[in-house]
Amino acid sequence: MQAGAAIPTQAMAELSGLDQLRGLVDGRFPQPTMDATLGFRLVAVDEGRAVIEGAPTAAMLNPFGTVHGGWAASVLDSALGYAIHSTLAPGEYLATLEIKINLTRAIQPGMAGLTATGTIVTRGRRVAVSEARMVDGEGRIYAHGSCTCLLLAL
Amino acid sequence: MQAGAAIPTQAMAELSGLDQLRGLVDGRFPQPTMDATLGFRLVAVDEGRAVIEGAPTAAMLNPFGTVHGGWAASVLDSALGYAIHSTLAPGEYLATLEIKINLTRAIQPGMAGLTATGTIVTRGRRVAVSEARMVDGEGRIYAHGSCTCLLLAL
Amino acid sequence: MQAGAAIPTQAMAELSGLDQLRGLVDGRFPQPTMDATLGFRLVAVDEGRAVIEGAPTAAMLNPFGTVHGGWAASVLDSALGYAIHSTLAPGEYLATLEIKINLTRAIQPGMAGLTATGTIVTRGRRVAVSEARMVDGEGRIYAHGSCTCLLLAL
Amino acid sequence: MQAGAAIPTQAMAELSGLDQLRGLVDGRFPQPTMDATLGFRLVAVDEGRAVIEGAPTAAMLNPFGTVHGGWAASVLDSALGYAIHSTLAPGEYLATLEIKINLTRAIQPGMAGLTATGTIVTRGRRVAVSEARMVDGEGRIYAHGSCTCLLLAL
Repeated sequence: MQAGAAIPTQAMAELSGLDQLRGLVDGRFPQPTMDATLGFRLVAVDEGRAVIEGAPTAAMLNPFGTVHGGWAASVLDSALGYAIHSTLAPGEYLATLEIKINLTRAIQPGMAGLTATGTIVTRGRRVAVSEARMVDGEGRIYAHGSCTCLLLAL
Repeated sequence: MQAGAAIPTQAMAELSGLDQLRGLVDGRFPQPTMDATLGFRLVAVDEGRAVIEGAPTAAMLNPFGTVHGGWAASVLDSALGYAIHSTLAPGEYLATLEIKINLTRAIQPGMAGLTATGTIVTRGRRVAVSEARMVDGEGRIYAHGSCTCLLLAL
Repeated sequence: MQAGAAIPTQAMAELSGLDQLRGLVDGRFPQPTMDATLGFRLVAVDEGRAVIEGAPTAAMLNPFGTVHGGWAASVLDSALGYAIHSTLAPGEYLATLEIKINLTRAIQPGMAGLTATGTIVTRGRRVAVSEARMVDGEGRIYAHGSCTCLLLAL
Repeated sequence: MQAGAAIPTQAMAELSGLDQLRGLVDGRFPQPTMDATLGFRLVAVDEGRAVIEGAPTAAMLNPFGTVHGGWAASVLDSALGYAIHSTLAPGEYLATLEIKINLTRAIQPGMAGLTATGTIVTRGRRVAVSEARMVDGEGRIYAHGSCTCLLLAL
């Protein structure tokens, strides 16, 4: 646990993952700094499901002037991880082992209304897998992917 | 091609991918904005190989206070894409279809000396694949992965 | 197109992908030989969706005596590819660029009732992506994954 | 551990992974049944590295008459897993969590001289990652990929 942690170690020990994430949504815990840097935030969470809204800007472009693939990867990584995080018992935490992202449509700076929803696929005792999709208001898919997380005890 | 493109459309039409990237390295073309936002930059490029140096800061943290997985994904996405970009003929460009990243060691804010090297694996007429690793000065691997790109004509 | 092709070149030129696959389901075209070798077969297909049933045997074991991961990968590769195949116009074909499979539960030889369903995620002009899950009769997920295909003209 | 296990439970408890695999190479342990079914076998192993030779036949075709993608996935899954297996201490075993395979060149039935080499990328206490490539005698790459394994105690 680092100085810049949005979720304090004590909250991780005492709260379920779902309650920790509710604390992010309702502002009891500060936003993780990456979220502000890349213009996204967790807006809703249930057990096994997390929703992130994001709005990429001209500060997040690749050499060709469209939004860098790392932006979608970052947003999906959060959605994927939070979907699993929401299933943690007090005292559990997770480490993301791998993420796999398909980039299916170019994202333009200034686009609004992009939403990434992560949902759990399988949740074992030691390993969990989730998947996520990023869509716009018309349901067009801009990116989607999956991740594998290791579940650990504090 | 967008307003914020680091590589102008004319350069894409007239220069090889390798020469375009050399223009990024030596400053003839401006850095892509994502690179400044996330603290990394292309420092060396050859045909089929690209090297990026990065230094994550406290502005790029996940909820637990370590560096967000999206940071490594963004750096590797650039290294992977540039390795393929360096093989493009004038008038060709690429679209990244998918990236797959393993996160093998936690990255701390303030770490210096992280280097990601992308190398081409296969390069066909329509599709290319590359792989990349991010290591520190002692050669420890923090993340690695691969990507698949579609090759297109302007 | 090879000597051992289950779908003749003429059928690929004249029939939609969906009609080609219906020919596999109803027996007008012979089963691909891999299906018999590994004990699975396409049992249902709609546009954008394909269902495979499989029953692994003692001829498909890894060194530890459970079913080799390649069995699930083969079944899912078929389900993923067929889901995209079902969207092809006459004269189109596909090349699978990559598959990514999570193995979430050990598969035992002799298990019956394993079903893998592939569904399309995105379908562009040149590239399509699908995902698939393998479940048993109780809905437990044994493996799932995604693939990226390139779409080509004969 | 199942009835059809090539590596007996006692050998897993008493031998290092490397010695177990040497037993497969030199014939002290029987080949896993999948290897015979799909025409491949482990031919060499060192710590962190495993080499498989395979020869696909007309019994392993997809609907188009080329070799099914599941064949390369099966061979690479073995090469990837064995590379990690070769690092196990007595009493350790592994579970493959995910594999990711790029299929870069069509494989024809009857091709000889295909070799898949798996090598370890990172090896932690609980998780290991490996990568593998399948090449022919001229070094052309037909498939390559990576896997993530969980390490466990018997």
